[in-house]
Amino acid sequence: MTEAGGFADRYRAAVAARGRLCAGIDPHPELLEQWGLPVSAQGVAQFGDICVEALGPVAAVVKPQVAFFEAFGSPGIAALERVIAGCGDAGALVVADAKRGDIGSTMAAYARAWLGEHSPLRSDAVTVSPYLGFGALAPAVDEALRADRAVIVLARTSNPEGAAVQLADAAGRTVAQGIVDEAAAHNTDGRGTVGVVVGATRAHGLDLGALRGVILAPGVGAQGATAADLPELFDGADQQWLLPASSRSVLRAGPDPAALRAACEAARDDVESALKR
Amino acid sequence: MTEAGGFADRYRAAVAARGRLCAGIDPHPELLEQWGLPVSAQGVAQFGDICVEALGPVAAVVKPQVAFFEAFGSPGIAALERVIAGCGDAGALVVADAKRGDIGSTMAAYARAWLGEHSPLRSDAVTVSPYLGFGALAPAVDEALRADRAVIVLARTSNPEGAAVQLADAAGRTVAQGIVDEAAAHNTDGRGTVGVVVGATRAHGLDLGALRGVILAPGVGAQGATAADLPELFDGADQQWLLPASSRSVLRAGPDPAALRAACEAARDDVESALKR
Repeated sequence: MTEAGGFADRYRAAVAARGRLCAGIDPHPELLEQWGLPVSAQGVAQFGDICVEALGPVAAVVKPQVAFFEAFGSPGIAALERVIAGCGDAGALVVADAKRGDIGSTMAAYARAWLGEHSPLRSDAVTVSPYLGFGALAPAVDEALRADRAVIVLARTSNPEGAAVQLADAAGRTVAQGIVDEAAAHNTDGRGTVGVVVGATRAHGLDLGALRGVILAPGVGAQGATAADLPELFDGADQQWLLPASSRSVLRAGPDPAALRAACEAARDDVESALKR
Repeated sequence: MTEAGGFADRYRAAVAARGRLCAGIDPHPELLEQWGLPVSAQGVAQFGDICVEALGPVAAVVKPQVAFFEAFGSPGIAALERVIAGCGDAGALVVADAKRGDIGSTMAAYARAWLGEHSPLRSDAVTVSPYLGFGALAPAVDEALRADRAVIVLARTSNPEGAAVQLADAAGRTVAQGIVDEAAAHNTDGRGTVGVVVGATRAHGLDLGALRGVILAPGVGAQGATAADLPELFDGADQQWLLPASSRSVLRAGPDPAALRAACEAARDDVESALKR
């Protein structure tokens, strides 16, 4: 595999230094309550500060779930900005789990929001949704390529309702496989600009062998899959690109920052022992 | 058709009082420059204030495009909150064009953000994206039903890249038709809780006859379709539900509020003369 820079180099360096895990930052109302925090923008900000302190210095990748911040409007988004900046300053790569998707100049505005140089929400990668077609995501792919960042495109999710769209037949392959193939076509330069989201909780049926980009696999821990399931679930993929994500199963160890960090490190160690580099 | 309350009654009352048009509020950088405003959160806020003044009192429906606010982070979102509140206070229905989509508790958080009683972003309807399956949108549909609001689901868009997903075959019908059929199944109570987005710029090939919910049709004006094209494009639909949206073609009349309002009224009159109630 070529070493062509781009997001690929940044991702490999982070995983080499810190081990493999994407730690979700999901200030779900139930977690706020469990942590003794108010269900408010202020509570979300405090939750975010604890995550920055506990996870920022140890996780290779963190993944704030935008919806839980957005639920509190602009003060919630301000709290998210602090999480993104704080985790980035602490050396973690930040994947904004936003699942944005639009066309043309509107998609370009989302790209500026999540990847643009002057945005307070600027992250290292952003998840995007391809209902408007993979090609409609081009403004975000272009922005990511320019800035050594990545877009991570929804392909195949673990919720049962997803099949009606993702497994529909598009000229002899599934919609999900079509997304993977288009992502792979963008990654032939080795820069890893386009990743995919593939749920870790059920057999996905995808050929991921040519992808050369991040395979973000949510659902390890609380949602059902264990680290030990991963090698079989992603048998045909280049497993150095497999990035398992844990959210609830780590976060329920909070609010004590030391306990939260220990849970993150334990989850990472589980993944490291299950997967070869 | 039954008169069963819900969003349907609110929509019919707005259209009866003000005539049919959804006026887009898209603070695109080129428009900010044309209006002599800075390309910044402050410029977006000023753009929004002008739209509230000019469009809020006359448009039946306004549709702020979230991406153009989000591009400036939390101060941009704060500007959007002012647009939503200001247009609502002036009597317009507000459709937040957010195209959000996720699953489970994350989808529920988006539903709270855009439709929830305590959210500063609360709108009358929100656009959502069904790549994770129509069923994954249930938390938003439930929230909308509770509050006499609506979710408007992407079905068939006018960009050429959309076909790869939207026209894929899902058990003998297109993905897009499957979305329309699931929306229709939610609307049998006559409350109009679930609408669809269908681009007005090309033949969509959908059977919309049973929908009983809003058909939001962007692209009238600058993007190619004229009001006169609408009756043929939406021949099989109940045209009282057809809501054409114009953005650039109206907004380029700004920044003078009187000129902007006149352009909105002219676009509405074009639609009113082309469509029967």
